[in-house]
Amino acid sequence: MTTPTTHRHDREADRPELKLARAGSLAAEAEECLSTDHLKEAVASIRERRGPGSEFLGWLDLPGVAKTEVDELRAVAEELRTEVDTLVVVGIGGSYLGARALLDALHWQRRRSASPEILFAGHHLEASAITELLEILEDREFAVNVISKSGTTTEPAIAFRLIRDLLHRRHGPQGAARRIIATTDAKAGALRRLAAQEGYRCFVIPEDVGGRFSVLSPVGLFPLAVAGVDVETLLGGARQQLDRCLHAPEAEVHAIRYAAYRHCAFRRGLAVEVLASFHPSLHQLAEWWKQLFGESEGKEGLGLFPTAVDYTTDLHSLGQALQDGPRILLETFLRADRTEAGPILPHAKEDLDGLEYLAGRSVGEINATALEAVAEAHETGGVPVAEIVIDDLREGSLGGLLAFFEFACAVSGRLLGVNPFDQPGVEAYKLNLFRRLGRPGS
Amino acid sequence: MTTPTTHRHDREADRPELKLARAGSLAAEAEECLSTDHLKEAVASIRERRGPGSEFLGWLDLPGVAKTEVDELRAVAEELRTEVDTLVVVGIGGSYLGARALLDALHWQRRRSASPEILFAGHHLEASAITELLEILEDREFAVNVISKSGTTTEPAIAFRLIRDLLHRRHGPQGAARRIIATTDAKAGALRRLAAQEGYRCFVIPEDVGGRFSVLSPVGLFPLAVAGVDVETLLGGARQQLDRCLHAPEAEVHAIRYAAYRHCAFRRGLAVEVLASFHPSLHQLAEWWKQLFGESEGKEGLGLFPTAVDYTTDLHSLGQALQDGPRILLETFLRADRTEAGPILPHAKEDLDGLEYLAGRSVGEINATALEAVAEAHETGGVPVAEIVIDDLREGSLGGLLAFFEFACAVSGRLLGVNPFDQPGVEAYKLNLFRRLGRPGS
Repeated sequence: MTTPTTHRHDREADRPELKLARAGSLAAEAEECLSTDHLKEAVASIRERRGPGSEFLGWLDLPGVAKTEVDELRAVAEELRTEVDTLVVVGIGGSYLGARALLDALHWQRRRSASPEILFAGHHLEASAITELLEILEDREFAVNVISKSGTTTEPAIAFRLIRDLLHRRHGPQGAARRIIATTDAKAGALRRLAAQEGYRCFVIPEDVGGRFSVLSPVGLFPLAVAGVDVETLLGGARQQLDRCLHAPEAEVHAIRYAAYRHCAFRRGLAVEVLASFHPSLHQLAEWWKQLFGESEGKEGLGLFPTAVDYTTDLHSLGQALQDGPRILLETFLRADRTEAGPILPHAKEDLDGLEYLAGRSVGEINATALEAVAEAHETGGVPVAEIVIDDLREGSLGGLLAFFEFACAVSGRLLGVNPFDQPGVEAYKLNLFRRLGRPGS
Repeated sequence: MTTPTTHRHDREADRPELKLARAGSLAAEAEECLSTDHLKEAVASIRERRGPGSEFLGWLDLPGVAKTEVDELRAVAEELRTEVDTLVVVGIGGSYLGARALLDALHWQRRRSASPEILFAGHHLEASAITELLEILEDREFAVNVISKSGTTTEPAIAFRLIRDLLHRRHGPQGAARRIIATTDAKAGALRRLAAQEGYRCFVIPEDVGGRFSVLSPVGLFPLAVAGVDVETLLGGARQQLDRCLHAPEAEVHAIRYAAYRHCAFRRGLAVEVLASFHPSLHQLAEWWKQLFGESEGKEGLGLFPTAVDYTTDLHSLGQALQDGPRILLETFLRADRTEAGPILPHAKEDLDGLEYLAGRSVGEINATALEAVAEAHETGGVPVAEIVIDDLREGSLGGLLAFFEFACAVSGRLLGVNPFDQPGVEAYKLNLFRRLGRPGS
């Protein structure tokens, strides 16, 4: 699956790479699918920006965002970095999952040194956790980035009202306004009106980008910039990947191959896709992935149900069911070629723990071997195992991975025949909630 | 489903309560199942301690553990509480999930004030996270509780060797030994031998208790006691629940009803059980639950695949797929009647966020309403919704809940026809791993 050397894309552009050596007969089916008209039309409809939901294809352009826009959000970020010790990001779903996933994947809270701590709020209604956050903020010099297209989504709106109240009491209305940055619609909505009235600084959520595709807009970029993440490199990785997705022959684009593969799995009757990584720091990235695919495909009674495991942790909880349970699963390993080697296991005087054969080896090496061992075991157990391989867990590779999944998801949704860019089912509980709470007009 | 007043169990013993009002036709099937010989035999085999795996039914006795044993572990815990600022719990799977679940559910890290912080290690092989832990420990006065029946499980053995090395360098062998408490087999195994040789204090993992059923043994109790959790009340809640499970008529025992219900769901062809709570602090409890059911039932090609959601968070990621995706799911809500009310939403001068109709209400009240709204929406969407209701999120209720799930799992496994107490599939990847790492004898 390596790209011919005559191709204009260079070697690095070949990552993320989809490997199907352990996927059994699904691998051949997926390769066949790549030459079908159905696949070609699905890809073409995204590339040519047509079909259901095509008014929400703005995410294809995000990595190419004007340098002035990035400069602008970095300037505000730099100002905050010198003035506050904490940034509270208020948002739910696509308004926080991407930034949180990247901070965790980059181990940012460990490496941040002089950067503000990024706390997330407004993504739940657990009273005790909100009480705890407000207590923590009592001792912090903090700013708030409230992220909402409408400004009326219940969870973030509640958290924002509570946190804004705290800022008002401490700094007065003008002092509070200086510490609030709104990321919202360019013109419409409650948050836009509030921001205009109170004088908050604003960043724009493009109207042609849905929440789960918004990580590379100011939604994700601003908090990441405040944290000190290299957003240019992140965007560069995504740009390179999308360029490939948009222009290379279908069969050479790994994101398209992934879409074909999972579509074949669904057609065969498999029900659940398990995203597996050997890095607990990628847990939140899997949460982002779950929203991306679950919300894009889980409609009209269709779609693989997305779930995730953190290995080796979950080998000791769900490992048994994956190995020997019903064969309704496909497992997709997320693997980075180069990761931190970590501590070297020291020698012991006596080999009482039976580990002496590992002495002198790094934890990272043992972890990489565990991935091979588990992939082999699950393949033997009858689970189709795919691997998505990236170079490392740094900004460029992660940017490429986000774009890879976004494009794959768009094509996969098209293959399924659903609109991958709407989420009609999310309204059902909201209507019930508003009625039960007595919201005016409900 | 309330207990007749003539019954010897009091009203409180009726919790956890299983409510099936939103479970559709599955509710009636489950009630019918309760009077079948198949169900009666499944329950009898547990109550009479016979059938496959009956040598691992010691968990039925754990809540009745001798007071002297609890006093002993509390004495060591009290000593540590005055001497260290951190306890590192080294263990994987059932050796850490229960304690971690309870600490989170009790919001212990927030309430602990003068208690040592409990850190968990040895449950993964992520190099950068282990490096980070070792860095944190450089500045801590810490003790270690290493939990392993054998002492040779790869992940905890690696973490323990690294942490022990740090203690040795800092305090010498004797000083290190005073700071290490081993929870392990009574007689056999590498950790038992090491503990004897080095003079570690030890607690016993009963030989008739498997890892995923061990939370109410010293495995869970000791770390909880160090944290300052009221372990007597926890055990009391479990004891009351198990007493009911073992002695009350089948149809009046909610744990048995839950087993019958999920068995009917599996027989009907449903594939995935989603445990849903509206408290992110119960996230780890769901992880414990996933191990309990996944490892007990996911064998011989059988078993519901267990997964979990944290609401309202995941309504904005998996909500769409739950509402409108393939009807392969059943959803089980975990609900506490009394939880912290939390902050009251303040009034605003202008209703720009459209939230003024909620002003004066507590976040806890809004969260409870959200649960009703979601249960209603998913039922309407064709997902059978069960509710498991407990009184509150305190020690007694949580102890009862753990026992409820354990007993339900045992009966459910029996109904399925598998041995709920083995985990043969967990060996497959381990054998591959040992071979690939070149472990002697593999």
